[in-house]
Amino acid sequence: MSDVAEHVLAAARRAKSAARVLATATRATKDAALDALADALVAHTDEILEANAEDLERGRENGTSSGLLDRLALTDARIVAIAEALRELAALPDPVGEVVRGSTLPNGLRLRQVRVPMGVVGMIYEARPNVTVDAAGLALKSGNAVVLRGGSAAARSNEVIVGVLGEALAAQGLPADLVQSIDAYGREGAVALMHARGLVDVLVPRGGADLIQTVVRESTVPVVETGVGNCHVYVDASADPAMALPILLNSKTQRVGVCNAAETLLVHADAAPAFLPAALAALAGEGVVLHGDAATAALAPEGVEVVPATDEDWATEYLSLDLAVRVVDDLDAAIEHIRAWSSGHTEAIVTRDLAASERFVAELDSAAVIVNASTRFTDGGQFGLGAEIGISTQKLHARGPMGLAELTTTKWVVHGDGHVRA
Amino acid sequence: MSDVAEHVLAAARRAKSAARVLATATRATKDAALDALADALVAHTDEILEANAEDLERGRENGTSSGLLDRLALTDARIVAIAEALRELAALPDPVGEVVRGSTLPNGLRLRQVRVPMGVVGMIYEARPNVTVDAAGLALKSGNAVVLRGGSAAARSNEVIVGVLGEALAAQGLPADLVQSIDAYGREGAVALMHARGLVDVLVPRGGADLIQTVVRESTVPVVETGVGNCHVYVDASADPAMALPILLNSKTQRVGVCNAAETLLVHADAAPAFLPAALAALAGEGVVLHGDAATAALAPEGVEVVPATDEDWATEYLSLDLAVRVVDDLDAAIEHIRAWSSGHTEAIVTRDLAASERFVAELDSAAVIVNASTRFTDGGQFGLGAEIGISTQKLHARGPMGLAELTTTKWVVHGDGHVRA
Repeated sequence: MSDVAEHVLAAARRAKSAARVLATATRATKDAALDALADALVAHTDEILEANAEDLERGRENGTSSGLLDRLALTDARIVAIAEALRELAALPDPVGEVVRGSTLPNGLRLRQVRVPMGVVGMIYEARPNVTVDAAGLALKSGNAVVLRGGSAAARSNEVIVGVLGEALAAQGLPADLVQSIDAYGREGAVALMHARGLVDVLVPRGGADLIQTVVRESTVPVVETGVGNCHVYVDASADPAMALPILLNSKTQRVGVCNAAETLLVHADAAPAFLPAALAALAGEGVVLHGDAATAALAPEGVEVVPATDEDWATEYLSLDLAVRVVDDLDAAIEHIRAWSSGHTEAIVTRDLAASERFVAELDSAAVIVNASTRFTDGGQFGLGAEIGISTQKLHARGPMGLAELTTTKWVVHGDGHVRA
Repeated sequence: MSDVAEHVLAAARRAKSAARVLATATRATKDAALDALADALVAHTDEILEANAEDLERGRENGTSSGLLDRLALTDARIVAIAEALRELAALPDPVGEVVRGSTLPNGLRLRQVRVPMGVVGMIYEARPNVTVDAAGLALKSGNAVVLRGGSAAARSNEVIVGVLGEALAAQGLPADLVQSIDAYGREGAVALMHARGLVDVLVPRGGADLIQTVVRESTVPVVETGVGNCHVYVDASADPAMALPILLNSKTQRVGVCNAAETLLVHADAAPAFLPAALAALAGEGVVLHGDAATAALAPEGVEVVPATDEDWATEYLSLDLAVRVVDDLDAAIEHIRAWSSGHTEAIVTRDLAASERFVAELDSAAVIVNASTRFTDGGQFGLGAEIGISTQKLHARGPMGLAELTTTKWVVHGDGHVRA
């Protein structure tokens, strides 16, 4: 085994030991620690901003895109907001200890299934120092240790933040090893983390499709796949255009670089002549580049350009002001299109037809199916889960927004009085 | 891609299409199909036994162990029992459609999290034709298609059984592709199944530790690790010996080749002098081979042999009439031993001390922790789950017995009235 792998496994072992201490900590202890972490981050603002400035400068020198630099950048106000999110976590109920199921069996055995922490959560993500704090906070609240691989672009920021969090944990009498970074070990360290089966209980990749696919392919640790969202809005024949247009615009333009933004619009052929010209104009007015099929192009008003769409457009998560548009013959064709191209994140239908809404909900197999509302609602905060560590697009363990409960597992606790099996 | 991989992916694609038909089938349809499968198996008993005889003969020629041959062997009575299990599945509630959580959000959005089928379940197992039927039945009831890799030893039996099930499904108006075998494609087919990410939603290996580890290492499809059980019985200082001995004997000897049988006995040093001599004699009387530390050997009565135990004994899931025995200084030492060596399946404590029982339950991180009862209770049937496809020893998705609910995932269904995100 390489030196790097040894170091990463040693970090995971320390995390596992630290997690045992936290597993039986009370909610009061964890909430006090969350508040202390928030205080410490604000108190060390200057130090964090200095480190962040180094990352930003290096990023500019390396020609990093302005979008990435914006994600990377911290300010006084952002640090206050990040700290506030920790205090909000403290205010949420503790998922640990919740009794999920329980019964007394016919033979008198008392059975209960109780939520317990996972143990060690691994996070692999890119250039987002706020995720470092979010992940640490969610892990702490749910009783887990976390091992972070935050990528080289934010390495200095993450190093300082993890140092501040560790000191604050220690000052609260908790192990500093609850929050560790393995950024110092580069890509080789990330690979070692993916192979730390038995020490790391779950790995959550967060970032672009390439990052996520690499983790899925490489990891022997169980992975929860997150975040790729090729989301659809389908405007049914019966849709109220006055409802459909705001939903469409909100789904596409309210925030573009996020996984729950819409990437494809499907319009029933009967609704298209009345709906599409105005919708295409409104989208273009918001700066949306339209990629459409021939039927869509034919309905575009004067001055609105429609780029011919190819299969690649149906497949693409643009994460930008682009939208693929297709006219479909009927609900069946819409369902068929979504089944063929969706990443299984979120699909919305706008309709007044009850049967159409029920078929859309029943026949599509995505994490969230939405009737008459924006795709942008698929979000832990919006769903009332309080916080999220990512949005799962796989079916195992967690599907959709992953909140605190999804960072726990369960344990069966059985009480008998000398029971033996017959 | 090789021809074999193409064939397996084609089978998985057919399974996915078939699963879509089943996903919206009513419970009545599925239960009628389960009864029809049971009838068909009994009606085709002769054909199945003939194929099974071929497998058994080939097994004998290849020098297969008598234990494996016993698992492989079918009889009239076994086929009736297998069919009966299908009828019992029909009598269980349908997990699909259960609303797990739901609420109306402050903005009026109506939210519910609903159980839906996984889609396609892959099973990789060894020489157990009854598992073929169990897996098909559990998948059908939970709305899933199943792709089966049952191993070459049972290939003829499985081929005939899958044929019978497929015909019975078709006669019920359901796709025969809901139950498919890829045994014809050998090991290469099994590897292709492990890589069918996006087509197969979960893979459940069932069998020995080697089989399971291979699947965990190789698979890019999400895996639920099942079945390896290095289970412990800890006899506390305060234990009632009259309760401890029956629990110990039941845990070790009631059935030996199963994952919830005890493999190691830990005895508190204060209890050892009074408990161990009689316990060792009783175990030896049942034919158990004892592997003990020096303190255990010193307490063995005349005529009871104790083989010196090594670390390998603490690590081994014997699945036989062998037991590792160790005297520990206190509860802490027992917990430390179990943390170091357990596979995380089931641990039992026998005690009269409330604080000891609570620490054992809280500090051990296994799928099941049992107070004053046999380890043999960790079982889907015993827990009242009705049936199980395996016992998960991982923390993601399912932990402990996996019943029908664990073969489902959830979907968020959201209803609005034109809601957009602010």
